[in-house]
Amino acid sequence: MRVSLQPRYSDYDSRGHVNNAVYLTYFEIGRVYAWLQAAGHANPNFIIAEARITYRSPAMLGEPLAIEITTSEIRTKAWVWTYRVVDERDGRLVAEGATTQVMYDYTQRQSVPVPDDLRAALGRL
Amino acid sequence: MRVSLQPRYSDYDSRGHVNNAVYLTYFEIGRVYAWLQAAGHANPNFIIAEARITYRSPAMLGEPLAIEITTSEIRTKAWVWTYRVVDERDGRLVAEGATTQVMYDYTQRQSVPVPDDLRAALGRL
Amino acid sequence: MRVSLQPRYSDYDSRGHVNNAVYLTYFEIGRVYAWLQAAGHANPNFIIAEARITYRSPAMLGEPLAIEITTSEIRTKAWVWTYRVVDERDGRLVAEGATTQVMYDYTQRQSVPVPDDLRAALGRL
Amino acid sequence: MRVSLQPRYSDYDSRGHVNNAVYLTYFEIGRVYAWLQAAGHANPNFIIAEARITYRSPAMLGEPLAIEITTSEIRTKAWVWTYRVVDERDGRLVAEGATTQVMYDYTQRQSVPVPDDLRAALGRL
Repeated sequence: MRVSLQPRYSDYDSRGHVNNAVYLTYFEIGRVYAWLQAAGHANPNFIIAEARITYRSPAMLGEPLAIEITTSEIRTKAWVWTYRVVDERDGRLVAEGATTQVMYDYTQRQSVPVPDDLRAALGRL
Repeated sequence: MRVSLQPRYSDYDSRGHVNNAVYLTYFEIGRVYAWLQAAGHANPNFIIAEARITYRSPAMLGEPLAIEITTSEIRTKAWVWTYRVVDERDGRLVAEGATTQVMYDYTQRQSVPVPDDLRAALGRL
Repeated sequence: MRVSLQPRYSDYDSRGHVNNAVYLTYFEIGRVYAWLQAAGHANPNFIIAEARITYRSPAMLGEPLAIEITTSEIRTKAWVWTYRVVDERDGRLVAEGATTQVMYDYTQRQSVPVPDDLRAALGRL
Repeated sequence: MRVSLQPRYSDYDSRGHVNNAVYLTYFEIGRVYAWLQAAGHANPNFIIAEARITYRSPAMLGEPLAIEITTSEIRTKAWVWTYRVVDERDGRLVAEGATTQVMYDYTQRQSVPVPDDLRAALGRL
């Protein structure tokens, strides 16, 4: 799925570029939408185990950005979401990366298997 | 009291100045220390009702900053903290402001009077 | 004018509320749109001299928010923008405040009068 | 090298944990100190090409954190810094990761070789 971002003036650092850490926040914006669509509710029953980003071209003030998110791998207790931050005008790739989510039961405080219905929904993203 | 700040590269916007919103975060850093000293614990039993800031001179990359916080008013259910962000080298005033805190019972979900011992401790800040 | 906000999961603090400092960032998002409309370009020829916020009701995760911005005062070299952050569903007031902008010539590094055409455009906001 | 962090209340999300994106900001704090020591000046002549993080244990409100940074690889035009965020009391590992920096000439707008003296200084980190 693809979500338009609302860049904030404070996202840009003193070089006039989106700060490197902000991309993980952009990933998170995409993740919130993706989770809502896959799980059907807003309560995130997972923890982030890993994240990685490759910076492709700097994003400058005034450039309209969007985030694309797809499920690239589903394991027993975890899945990987892959992200692309692009310039909305021409699709220029700004950054790309991935995060690994581990299904987590916050009551029992332990990782648990990804339920079948969620697995199917994740596969459609 | 006075607390040294640890400015972050991401605090600075594309003009190379600390972004205007970040000063409220600096105030919050001071507030956490002030509350811990006054209340003796870290659980903040208050809500912020108002905040105001006057920007005096821009803070540039590399300048060492500190936050000063004093209690300037104590009312029945609320008190005012006043802040000064200064350059640690020469005391140059960067920004100043105030926040009004209302004593709050998060269980009963209502404002409550400031306890006498806290009132006394706030007066010493 | 009114602009829909895109709240971020990281805007919420450990009480599940939008953090008090983030409202100044929300004001800034409104300001960027307002400036673009009034000035016709994105280069902000002003400095923020003052800001104040009154917190009316906490904003919780999942609530859709919008920012409203109007010009409430225009002086020789400065003007005041007034903001309201509202719940988009029912218009509930979450926070309101104001910032004072001083027209600034970044080349000459001094405040300058607000040009007549900008004054007129600000008055229409 | 090791640098004490000053966690901010706004670093913590609604689960009471340091938000996943904030770790890249913690890495950046370490990087600023490391660069200053290696290069002898504050002007960062590099771009970040890649970042990765593994989250080991959540950081909770009130826990004192530090960042450790070492140079783990030096190539012709790039080098890798490796980070560990730890609890200062017992050294518990909270998160670890790495960023790849590419030496960059912002005037010529192209990557350039890492100078020999910087290479040596990076090797001592």
